Amino acid sequence: MVRLRMTSERNRTLSGATDKVLFTPGPLTTSRTVKQAMLRDLGSRDHEFIEVVREVRRSLLEIGQCGKDHVAVLMQGSGTFGIESVISSTIPKGGKLLVIVNGAYGKRIVRMAEVLGIDRVVQTYGEDTLPDVAAVESALASDRGITHVAMIHSETTTGLVNPIEEVGRVVRSAGRVFIVDAMSSFGAIPIDVAGCSIDYIVSSANKCIEGVPGFSFVVARREALLASEGSARSLSLDLHAQWKGLENDGQFRFTPPTHAILGFHQALRELAEEGGVAARGARYRACQQTLAKGMEALGFSAYLKPELQGPIITTFRYPAHSKFDFEVFYERLSRRGFAIYPGKLTNADCFRIGTIGRIFEGDVVNLLSAIRDSLAEMGVDSASAG
Amino acid sequence: MVRLRMTSERNRTLSGATDKVLFTPGPLTTSRTVKQAMLRDLGSRDHEFIEVVREVRRSLLEIGQCGKDHVAVLMQGSGTFGIESVISSTIPKGGKLLVIVNGAYGKRIVRMAEVLGIDRVVQTYGEDTLPDVAAVESALASDRGITHVAMIHSETTTGLVNPIEEVGRVVRSAGRVFIVDAMSSFGAIPIDVAGCSIDYIVSSANKCIEGVPGFSFVVARREALLASEGSARSLSLDLHAQWKGLENDGQFRFTPPTHAILGFHQALRELAEEGGVAARGARYRACQQTLAKGMEALGFSAYLKPELQGPIITTFRYPAHSKFDFEVFYERLSRRGFAIYPGKLTNADCFRIGTIGRIFEGDVVNLLSAIRDSLAEMGVDSASAG
Repeated sequence: MVRLRMTSERNRTLSGATDKVLFTPGPLTTSRTVKQAMLRDLGSRDHEFIEVVREVRRSLLEIGQCGKDHVAVLMQGSGTFGIESVISSTIPKGGKLLVIVNGAYGKRIVRMAEVLGIDRVVQTYGEDTLPDVAAVESALASDRGITHVAMIHSETTTGLVNPIEEVGRVVRSAGRVFIVDAMSSFGAIPIDVAGCSIDYIVSSANKCIEGVPGFSFVVARREALLASEGSARSLSLDLHAQWKGLENDGQFRFTPPTHAILGFHQALRELAEEGGVAARGARYRACQQTLAKGMEALGFSAYLKPELQGPIITTFRYPAHSKFDFEVFYERLSRRGFAIYPGKLTNADCFRIGTIGRIFEGDVVNLLSAIRDSLAEMGVDSASAG
Repeated sequence: MVRLRMTSERNRTLSGATDKVLFTPGPLTTSRTVKQAMLRDLGSRDHEFIEVVREVRRSLLEIGQCGKDHVAVLMQGSGTFGIESVISSTIPKGGKLLVIVNGAYGKRIVRMAEVLGIDRVVQTYGEDTLPDVAAVESALASDRGITHVAMIHSETTTGLVNPIEEVGRVVRSAGRVFIVDAMSSFGAIPIDVAGCSIDYIVSSANKCIEGVPGFSFVVARREALLASEGSARSLSLDLHAQWKGLENDGQFRFTPPTHAILGFHQALRELAEEGGVAARGARYRACQQTLAKGMEALGFSAYLKPELQGPIITTFRYPAHSKFDFEVFYERLSRRGFAIYPGKLTNADCFRIGTIGRIFEGDVVNLLSAIRDSLAEMGVDSASAG
């Protein structure tokens, strides 16, 4: 069988070198045309820019399979700013948040609520474990004070994909508000926002839609967002006010990252050209499977069981070999033009390899060769975790 | 005398048209090379990117004429996010903020304090009036509860430049913390941050340094910032934590806008090549003077007295003529390739023209011709405000 060897377009630096291929969860490798779309200066009140923002917002609703009950709002800053805009400005004073945690990004929401002074309950699961939907249900039944539930869809800490549909059903039955951090899944894993009973779903420009970093976005159920008015604990991160601004005259309240938005507009076009969410997800999955098989053949063991593994990022345990040193390994790969990602687990020495962004199976095959060579050069004869 | 007719590089759109010249306070016209610096994808943990961030932070300290007592921190989001990071995370619980207001940006800080639940006193002056330094002094003497003082340097509402040095002296004598919003002055009006007794000064990538929008920055007195630890009211906008992250390993806590930062790095180089803050300010001033004279010759009257007028943006009163319609005027100029800016005054019908960004005297001369022609086409025979 002839394997597809298509590889990413590499960006040439001024000195003639090429950028690394980014096997990370973002900032990630984007297409040349996405970056070229930023070679313009548009005023934020310009009709053309306002139309770009309108199209972007409309496309986000389509990706979320939403009808007229939902709205899309862009928020300046990284994905975390988008999450905090929801947590800080849509939970009223006196509200109480249940956070379902099985990784660092769930923990980050807990930390946010803590800093914001929002009352909270936390259900913590192992980083390799799915949350217990029945436990969520009984927490909602026994604690009537809980008004909002937040969870992560694709936990970038490990690569695990959480069951938002099942949890959404339970949250809806209990009549609570459901917040989903879909940072690294929106645009590659199909999500029926209404079907999953999601009130607020958050992602960022620089994940599966393959734009450049600079803003995040929220798809919100209109009625929930309307009801949140007046709950903001900050001016910048006020989601309702941001939405109202965009609805009134199509403009942002505060200077938008015009260039990043132009790039994102182009990225949305390229997502559609690729065949939409299903095709994008299929490419990521193919890359992830090639990676997982290749790494297994080299002796690496994946942290997650295959049935929990998503297409975005894969966590591998450090080899038990005495000569394995992650910093050295990372540097060798970096010199070969590949950027991988360190681990973020509390209980195991791991590193991560992302299969998101404008990368293709050929890039993964090249990475695997570089990993094999690097191990050999380091004198690591087997990457087995022992 | 032969007038310099150098004009901005115009960006060509895909359809072959060129972008408008932006006579706005931002997003503004930037150099082609600044935008081209964004044609790369660097990982946020990449050594090269970390070095870029280090150089950017060092350059910002130089522009603020700072030594070892100050540090520079970048913050994701627009300038307002940078201001709110200071207001929300450096004023401790129990603190009280005096805000000096003579325009919309001063008012925005008051609104921020209100949303954040920070106790505040407001001194409000006319939009065409300098604050009364003696009144600030006596407010600080009579209200010992005031811990922080905030003011705007260049009020983009009008173009007025406020006396930060005099106010700084009074704030220092009174032993309070001084916060300056230098959004549209930092990089074009020389500021001796320590000499003005400033503890926190805030600006954004997309103003006088002529980068693209996507982040803001704060130059802070190290001791003040250290003392602010634990005062944050939000996770994303925690200035102390952001600083600590950058100090520890050179990395951002949350995904940085890598492309905007690469553009800014190039913009800083171009600022130095132009001759630094003095030369940049001289170009803006020359453009502003050409604009002011030309507009006066067309019959327009400027809102501010000349001695209050800064080089960044100029406010003009609507002509009293019955055939003048701002929307029509704006559209005509827009079709000619010039974007001007609406007014933001509470008490007068005005519009604004910025002289900031990668624009030159020749651009201003072209704009003046287009304004003259547009008035004639509209049947406005004199732009006099009556």
